[in-house]
Amino acid sequence: MQTAIYTTCMDAIKDDKETGRLEAFSDGVFAVAITLLVLNIRVPGLDSPGALLDDNRLWPVLRDQWPVLVAYGISFSTIGIMWLNHHRLFTHIKHTNTVLLLLNLLLLLIIVFIPVPTALLAEYIIHPDQRAAAIVYSGTMVVLACCFNLLWRYASYHNRLLGKNVDPHSVKAISGQYLFGPLLYLIAFGVAWISAPASIICNAILALFFALPGRPLRSLPQETKGNEN
Amino acid sequence: MQTAIYTTCMDAIKDDKETGRLEAFSDGVFAVAITLLVLNIRVPGLDSPGALLDDNRLWPVLRDQWPVLVAYGISFSTIGIMWLNHHRLFTHIKHTNTVLLLLNLLLLLIIVFIPVPTALLAEYIIHPDQRAAAIVYSGTMVVLACCFNLLWRYASYHNRLLGKNVDPHSVKAISGQYLFGPLLYLIAFGVAWISAPASIICNAILALFFALPGRPLRSLPQETKGNEN
Amino acid sequence: MQTAIYTTCMDAIKDDKETGRLEAFSDGVFAVAITLLVLNIRVPGLDSPGALLDDNRLWPVLRDQWPVLVAYGISFSTIGIMWLNHHRLFTHIKHTNTVLLLLNLLLLLIIVFIPVPTALLAEYIIHPDQRAAAIVYSGTMVVLACCFNLLWRYASYHNRLLGKNVDPHSVKAISGQYLFGPLLYLIAFGVAWISAPASIICNAILALFFALPGRPLRSLPQETKGNEN
Amino acid sequence: MQTAIYTTCMDAIKDDKETGRLEAFSDGVFAVAITLLVLNIRVPGLDSPGALLDDNRLWPVLRDQWPVLVAYGISFSTIGIMWLNHHRLFTHIKHTNTVLLLLNLLLLLIIVFIPVPTALLAEYIIHPDQRAAAIVYSGTMVVLACCFNLLWRYASYHNRLLGKNVDPHSVKAISGQYLFGPLLYLIAFGVAWISAPASIICNAILALFFALPGRPLRSLPQETKGNEN
Repeated sequence: MQTAIYTTCMDAIKDDKETGRLEAFSDGVFAVAITLLVLNIRVPGLDSPGALLDDNRLWPVLRDQWPVLVAYGISFSTIGIMWLNHHRLFTHIKHTNTVLLLLNLLLLLIIVFIPVPTALLAEYIIHPDQRAAAIVYSGTMVVLACCFNLLWRYASYHNRLLGKNVDPHSVKAISGQYLFGPLLYLIAFGVAWISAPASIICNAILALFFALPGRPLRSLPQETKGNEN
Repeated sequence: MQTAIYTTCMDAIKDDKETGRLEAFSDGVFAVAITLLVLNIRVPGLDSPGALLDDNRLWPVLRDQWPVLVAYGISFSTIGIMWLNHHRLFTHIKHTNTVLLLLNLLLLLIIVFIPVPTALLAEYIIHPDQRAAAIVYSGTMVVLACCFNLLWRYASYHNRLLGKNVDPHSVKAISGQYLFGPLLYLIAFGVAWISAPASIICNAILALFFALPGRPLRSLPQETKGNEN
Repeated sequence: MQTAIYTTCMDAIKDDKETGRLEAFSDGVFAVAITLLVLNIRVPGLDSPGALLDDNRLWPVLRDQWPVLVAYGISFSTIGIMWLNHHRLFTHIKHTNTVLLLLNLLLLLIIVFIPVPTALLAEYIIHPDQRAAAIVYSGTMVVLACCFNLLWRYASYHNRLLGKNVDPHSVKAISGQYLFGPLLYLIAFGVAWISAPASIICNAILALFFALPGRPLRSLPQETKGNEN
Repeated sequence: MQTAIYTTCMDAIKDDKETGRLEAFSDGVFAVAITLLVLNIRVPGLDSPGALLDDNRLWPVLRDQWPVLVAYGISFSTIGIMWLNHHRLFTHIKHTNTVLLLLNLLLLLIIVFIPVPTALLAEYIIHPDQRAAAIVYSGTMVVLACCFNLLWRYASYHNRLLGKNVDPHSVKAISGQYLFGPLLYLIAFGVAWISAPASIICNAILALFFALPGRPLRSLPQETKGNEN
């Protein structure tokens, strides 16, 4: 019996360990990407030490930084929600193989790239008639939605890499939510060619939609455990 | 019996795992944010390789960097104490749900932003009559105190997301310490409109107050375990 | 019996813990190195806030950034595949000693350096007659292959630092794959002195070769577990 | 009996968890600090995209970068060895309290600062008659040695925060090695006022001395486990 307990104990530890390094590496990439965003915010007067401004002149300078702060907020929310989705997928994915590692790297490639189109978007937010920034941003989101789908479809296909005790209900909920992801982002991409502000609003709604778990997810043990206590 | 042991063993492992990735991601963000602070310190002569200075001229250049070093010290202490508080809260919080993940992201949004007002503050430290920097810094601290409160109130409400064996005494101690946080920071914010140096001193005292655990916390197992050995 | 179970349980936990911090530190370094690559991508117009471009002029500016994007893609893939290899080695390496920690630091020294020759390579990709960049890049890869070999040879020599239940088949597979690594990269390095594009193609093929596990690796528990489910 | 096993199992897991977040945060800080070093290495021609150099002119430009590469090597080794020492201490330290967390933050404050004096040192390495850089570097090392001592003395005093099954022999070995640390670094600091190159050599020898474990450490289970296999 000792061996049996040892084996189950080992299995339980191993089960979590298999995706452990993938998650640690991904967490690191998400954390660095989300923190680097602050580098875009310049402190007025710091670059030229001699040019300190008095209060009357500092206030308007700070106020003019609002597009940079908006860009910071949007980028942070976007990457944060992506981390939340990654976290949600890997509460179900318990095993790894080389293909999953490569698909995860592909996903991270896009995640790390996100600050670039977001900075572009925030810069051109004051010129709603210029659509190039909104098109580039929406396009990146379409690619990202496809990457998330690829990762999830590969892992969940016939429960390939999911845990043994996975809740089929919650897996279906994610699959359902993700099914329409690329299509919806494609529509937001199409809208960007017509109107930049409308496309930004579409993308914001989609971000909120993927921040919240899908409907059937409410019966997830992870979600309910907190409320039951 | 084997199944029972397996279950308890699994539970013990799972219990720690549920907030594992949230903590790993937050640790990553804190670590990057605290390390990026060094980028503000310029090495004299490195930017213009031809302009090496001899000893007589290098010493005064190094000495003139003191406001940058003070800024580094303040920012590092601020983010370090925030990490300490985050660490303290998550010795009690054992479960997660989507709302907690989002509140934690909101908290990190402010944490990552901290280097900006701190750099501003350090720059204007030599001009005590200029209050804009102290106002912006104090304002950020008020928002941060509110975020910490929101996170803790949400998690500790009816022990919603706390561990099963949580010490009610220490939970109350944190709740008590946090109750007055936003109010005290709001007072420091008010002081900033009158006197910048007085506001900085208020903020420093508050930072120390939150670095140390609340009084009833002394009976925490975490704290005493070390002394008992 | 209780003691026996306790011991095995402890052993199982300890077994994973011994390389835990080495892996966490390495994951952090890989994550930061791979994320810093995005800093090379400049957002047009962000540096000079007044010089916003209209759509007609922004598109060609974005299009001209393709060598930077290619550099980003190559660097990301290179470091990503290196992480994958590091991950693969440490599914077998279970113990550490000072020599292994130092060899791992040496490996990370080269990993962190990779963005420099890759940026150089991407910049000179449009001048195929200039070979210096390809030579520097190929040379770095030779050193990196040697470092990986050194780490693996040291750890796998007489199963010195490998886990107890390691699969000898898969260890041999890695040793076989790694045996020819430095030689193959040395050939690519030699080719760089004759033709830069041919050397880049050689390096790309080698990267793919090391991204995929060696043939005998297919029977690895890690690889098959996913397919069995 | 089940409860007993549960308790021991829990204890084993908890024992590692208590310093878990401190180590994860420290690993993150070390990883970011060590990776940021590469930002000091400039790729020739990347800053001014139009100014691509042909092979004849690129080689000497690359060759002139050697002081930057030396700085990179020294900084990387220094921070790497500091991580190694931190790792070594925390194989014995198993418990935390607020004082230890604050002492660890103080240590990280100096670690994150290291790239600054190292960059200064590397820049002035070609001017051995200029001593300011060597003095600043040696001074930082004295402070760092004191911080390491403070952390270890606090944790090991009456085995305050060490694990239950700690090997007293290896603890004494570390205490012995650390006892002379600040004194030796103080001597190197004194030498810097007389001769910069002699001080650099002293510091390099001291770095090697602290990279290797102290003599009695050879009988550590951690060290021998690898050789026994």
